[in-house]
Amino acid sequence: MRLKFRPVDASFYDLFSEAAAHIVVGAQLLAEMLADGSDREAIAKRMRDAEHAADETTHAIIRRVNSTFVTPFDREDIYALASGLDDVMDMMDEAVDLVLLYEVTHLPAETTQQVEVLQRCAELTAAAMPSLESMKSLDEFWIEINRLENTGDKAFRRILASLFSGEYEALEVLKIKDVVESLEGAIDAFEKVANIVEQIAVKES
Amino acid sequence: MRLKFRPVDASFYDLFSEAAAHIVVGAQLLAEMLADGSDREAIAKRMRDAEHAADETTHAIIRRVNSTFVTPFDREDIYALASGLDDVMDMMDEAVDLVLLYEVTHLPAETTQQVEVLQRCAELTAAAMPSLESMKSLDEFWIEINRLENTGDKAFRRILASLFSGEYEALEVLKIKDVVESLEGAIDAFEKVANIVEQIAVKES
Amino acid sequence: MRLKFRPVDASFYDLFSEAAAHIVVGAQLLAEMLADGSDREAIAKRMRDAEHAADETTHAIIRRVNSTFVTPFDREDIYALASGLDDVMDMMDEAVDLVLLYEVTHLPAETTQQVEVLQRCAELTAAAMPSLESMKSLDEFWIEINRLENTGDKAFRRILASLFSGEYEALEVLKIKDVVESLEGAIDAFEKVANIVEQIAVKES
Repeated sequence: MRLKFRPVDASFYDLFSEAAAHIVVGAQLLAEMLADGSDREAIAKRMRDAEHAADETTHAIIRRVNSTFVTPFDREDIYALASGLDDVMDMMDEAVDLVLLYEVTHLPAETTQQVEVLQRCAELTAAAMPSLESMKSLDEFWIEINRLENTGDKAFRRILASLFSGEYEALEVLKIKDVVESLEGAIDAFEKVANIVEQIAVKES
Repeated sequence: MRLKFRPVDASFYDLFSEAAAHIVVGAQLLAEMLADGSDREAIAKRMRDAEHAADETTHAIIRRVNSTFVTPFDREDIYALASGLDDVMDMMDEAVDLVLLYEVTHLPAETTQQVEVLQRCAELTAAAMPSLESMKSLDEFWIEINRLENTGDKAFRRILASLFSGEYEALEVLKIKDVVESLEGAIDAFEKVANIVEQIAVKES
Repeated sequence: MRLKFRPVDASFYDLFSEAAAHIVVGAQLLAEMLADGSDREAIAKRMRDAEHAADETTHAIIRRVNSTFVTPFDREDIYALASGLDDVMDMMDEAVDLVLLYEVTHLPAETTQQVEVLQRCAELTAAAMPSLESMKSLDEFWIEINRLENTGDKAFRRILASLFSGEYEALEVLKIKDVVESLEGAIDAFEKVANIVEQIAVKES
């Protein structure tokens, strides 16, 4: 784990923005991974780097919360938000890893919709993090993530139905199911992040 | 999410009873879903409605705990109980959804035992919620749920063994395994609810 | 659940050491289970006993924390550590159970590496528990568990790749995947324990 320079006065808001920025990178790499003709080994390596960088940010938040006397909102909410963002990254990293590991060659078309949802969720989350300071527009964030999660869920269910329609062999089903479950897991993790943000906003209002 | 009229003075006990009432409905729909010759589309739709109603109750509890100064027991225990009841509903909803989605035609006989356990757990939980106020008979609740979880676990393990006995094809195993794992997950979620109730009772005693 | 004699003044440190001792037994039984020519029924029975004994210790910790006014570190950290240790035991028990239930006859060679990691993690955890009192050498514990988790993760990924290399039939893949995922889950659970210990140490420093 390479240590990055970080000014001592980086606030919790800055750190959460940093965590979300890693997630934007991760979602972009995920999209590249699933594009035809991509250099999967190289992308998977960059994903691992992004995941390490995200881990570093998570650790920075945890250490900060443990060593700070006054926090901008409840300590347990800071933990929950940091670990929620970390879960998003882990699930996206898992999806990339499984595609490489299983040598998945063909994914159902709806997988693209899952990845588009993830990219949109990542952008919205990155945009929402600075708003934690002003507590403005967080309602819109929460509602939009929930709407996207719903879209992602429908794509996921269509994929599952097609996997068991007889078109795929059992081993292929096993591989693809693992990948699309990771993608669905990442989308669900975004929803949890949005719920935590909502809870923080409700408490502060 | 349709907003339901709810009198402003509904207590936490009332809201927990409401959550448990949704679960009783869900367990009943689950039993209907697995009965021969049922209208699965229609039942799955009613299950989705029940699940939405349960979500609404969970949200009502969370918002109440965030806006109330004095709570009848620890805030984190209220969260844990609300989200535990929500998990039960989610797992039952998932089971119903998978049966429809995978077009499962035949389930091992022991699945009935899992569903009976779920129905009994739902009734016991609904009966226990009002007792949170008096803190009476909660021991019996906790012990009985744990006994039922044990029965459910044995049925689950028999199903798994039979799935891999060579009688089923791999794709069929994958489908059925997902369904019975959801049922087992719902039973485990009831056990967690019972453990939270036990913990609340111990603190208050 | 047989009640064991326990002196009233057993400290939290003693109880955590007791929990870790059960885990050392569990890891040893797991290694025996996977050895050629072992009496699997007998070992699985001993594993169930060890798991029950561990449950008893977990309950003792929870009851103690609920009935004690002053705790050596934050109440929620005591809960988290107790339930983290319990998760390790549950995952190891699940692995043993699945091997018996699925009548798994052949496991990939790398499974041995997973089990070695688990045995080493168990020993380190047992050695670290008494250090919670002095808060000494906990850094080394945390770092070493994370290094071992990394080793275990590599073995797990090699197993997954080999499972899907075409060498195994779908049903065999399903069985083995469940077993090695339990082993990986147990290793991850050790990592969580180490992270909780780190967090306790940071707060106290």
